[in-house]
Amino acid sequence: MIEPGVGPVSGVLRGAEHIYRLRVYFEDTDAAGIVYYASYLRMAERARTEMMRLLGADHAGMMRGDGLVLTVRQCAIEYLAPARLDDVLEIRSSLAEIRGASLRVRQTVHRDGDTLARIDLRLACVSDIGRPARFPARLRSALAGLGRAALPEATQRA
Amino acid sequence: MIEPGVGPVSGVLRGAEHIYRLRVYFEDTDAAGIVYYASYLRMAERARTEMMRLLGADHAGMMRGDGLVLTVRQCAIEYLAPARLDDVLEIRSSLAEIRGASLRVRQTVHRDGDTLARIDLRLACVSDIGRPARFPARLRSALAGLGRAALPEATQRA
Amino acid sequence: MIEPGVGPVSGVLRGAEHIYRLRVYFEDTDAAGIVYYASYLRMAERARTEMMRLLGADHAGMMRGDGLVLTVRQCAIEYLAPARLDDVLEIRSSLAEIRGASLRVRQTVHRDGDTLARIDLRLACVSDIGRPARFPARLRSALAGLGRAALPEATQRA
Amino acid sequence: MIEPGVGPVSGVLRGAEHIYRLRVYFEDTDAAGIVYYASYLRMAERARTEMMRLLGADHAGMMRGDGLVLTVRQCAIEYLAPARLDDVLEIRSSLAEIRGASLRVRQTVHRDGDTLARIDLRLACVSDIGRPARFPARLRSALAGLGRAALPEATQRA
Repeated sequence: MIEPGVGPVSGVLRGAEHIYRLRVYFEDTDAAGIVYYASYLRMAERARTEMMRLLGADHAGMMRGDGLVLTVRQCAIEYLAPARLDDVLEIRSSLAEIRGASLRVRQTVHRDGDTLARIDLRLACVSDIGRPARFPARLRSALAGLGRAALPEATQRA
Repeated sequence: MIEPGVGPVSGVLRGAEHIYRLRVYFEDTDAAGIVYYASYLRMAERARTEMMRLLGADHAGMMRGDGLVLTVRQCAIEYLAPARLDDVLEIRSSLAEIRGASLRVRQTVHRDGDTLARIDLRLACVSDIGRPARFPARLRSALAGLGRAALPEATQRA
Repeated sequence: MIEPGVGPVSGVLRGAEHIYRLRVYFEDTDAAGIVYYASYLRMAERARTEMMRLLGADHAGMMRGDGLVLTVRQCAIEYLAPARLDDVLEIRSSLAEIRGASLRVRQTVHRDGDTLARIDLRLACVSDIGRPARFPARLRSALAGLGRAALPEATQRA
Repeated sequence: MIEPGVGPVSGVLRGAEHIYRLRVYFEDTDAAGIVYYASYLRMAERARTEMMRLLGADHAGMMRGDGLVLTVRQCAIEYLAPARLDDVLEIRSSLAEIRGASLRVRQTVHRDGDTLARIDLRLACVSDIGRPARFPARLRSALAGLGRAALPEATQRA
C-alpha cells in the first residue's frame, strides 16, 4: 500500500535512531507566523507512532488486540528556534530508557542543520481501565533490540 | 531532500487527479473513536497544498514572493463513513473550475475501496490586504495544464 | 459550578436562537494571520454542544447513558470575512429542520455588526455501532420546543 | 460586550492566582476516550491569555501596538489523571518568576478536587524579528503587582 511519493511514510530506523520527515502546513502555524507551540507535540506523536509501527506495534492493534494504550506521563519541551510554513522538519527519536511498563523517549526536531526543539517524554503502557500494564512480549523484544543500539551501557548491565 | 520512506511526500499527479495518502493519528480522532469532523479539512488542505506544490506553487513562496494567499471561500463536506485510528486514507483532488482569481477543487477521501467523504471547495487568490488578486502567471499555466485533463470541455471552449 | 466571569459558559437561548460568544486564540489562527478555515468547525461544535446542553442533552450523558452520538453528515460553510486573533465572535445557532433521527442546524458567526461565516449542517443520531437511531424522548421534546419558535410553519402542520 | 452566561470569560484573579474554567469538547479528545496530550497546551494558553488580558496586555494589542509577542521557550507537563469529554476543568495560573524580558508561569489543571496536570513554562518577550525584548512598561508593572502576591520574597528583595 505504501508507494514512494504517494505516502504515507513511516520514516526509517538508522542505528539507534528513528528518522522521520514531515512538512509544516497552515494547520500547524499561528498568527505569529510560526509553528504553534502545541503543534510540536502532534508532530512528535506522529514520529513516535511510526517508530513503534516499524517495531511491530501499531496503536490500533494494541488497542483492539491487547486492550493497551501508550500514554504520555511527562513531557518536557525546549523551543530553540521557530519553524515556519512549508518547512521540512526532521524528527529524530530514540529510546532513553526501557522498563517493563514504561519508557523514555528523546526526540529532537531539525531543519537543515539547525535543532529547533528538544522533547523528552515518559510514556506508560496502560490497560483499558487506565492501570499500568507491562508491554506485550513482542513489543518488549522489539524495544530491547532498538534499545541495545541506543543504550549500550544498559545492555551491558542486562 | 525527499527520501523514500523518510518523508515528506507530495503525492502524485495521475491524469487529471492528484493522489495523496496519509495516516490517521490520535490527533485526528475524538472520543467517539472516529476521525473528528474538522480533521478532514486539515487533511484535505495538506493534499491541496501538495497538489499546488507539484504545480509549482508553494504557499510560502506565494506569500513571501507574491504577497498572495489562497483562501477558502466555500466548502461543502459530505461524511459517508467514518475513518478510524491508524487508517491509511487516500485523498484524490481535481480541479472542477479555473478562473482568473479563483478555482473550484473537488476532493474525495477513500479507504481501500470505500469513499468516506466528499469535499467541494471554492478558493480565491487574495493579496496581503485581503483583496481578490489574479493567480501569478506561472501558476495559471500550471493550473491550465492540469485543468485540460480534468476539464476537457472547458478546454474546447478556450 | 458556573460562576460569572470564571467560566465555562453555555450561551443563552433567545427565542428560536442559541447565542454563544467566544474568543479567538493563537490556536485558532494560522500563518496568514487569520482564523484557520477548519477552526470554525471546532467553534461551531462548541456552540452546538452548549445549545444541546441547555436543551438537556450533554454528549457524555448521551454516550454513556443512551449509547448515542450526534454525528455530522453534511456541512457547508461560506467564509465571508476573516476573523483575527483576540476577536470576540458570536455564534448564533438555530434549528432548520427536526426529524426523528436527524436535524438540520444553521449557524452564523458574527463580529460586532458583521457576519463572518455561515454554516449549515445535517446531524444524525447514531448508536454505538454506527446505525441511525431515534433521538431519546427527552431530547425530542426539547428540540420540538426550540423548533416551535424556529419553525412556525412546521408547527402549524404538526 | 461580556454578558454572564453568553461568554467569553476571562477568569478571575484571586490573590496571586488566576482562575479560569473551561469545558472539554470533542475537539479536545482522542480515540483513547480522553483529552489528547497536546490539548492541555491549547487550554493552558487560553488561561494565560486571559490572565494577561486582566493584567492589561492582550496579544493583538501587543502585536499591533508594540510589535511584541510572548513566546514559549520551555514547557514541562506532568499528566496525573485523564480528563474526559464534557468535563469542566479549572486552570490555576500563577507567576513563578518575573524578569525584564521573560517570566515563568506555573499552571495546574483541576477537576473537582483532583489535580489532573501540572504545567511549568518559561515565556520570553520577543520582537517581530524574533529578538528578546523587554516587556512594555505597563505590562511590567501589572506583572509586578501580581508577582508581589505570588512571590513575596522576591518583593522583599526588590
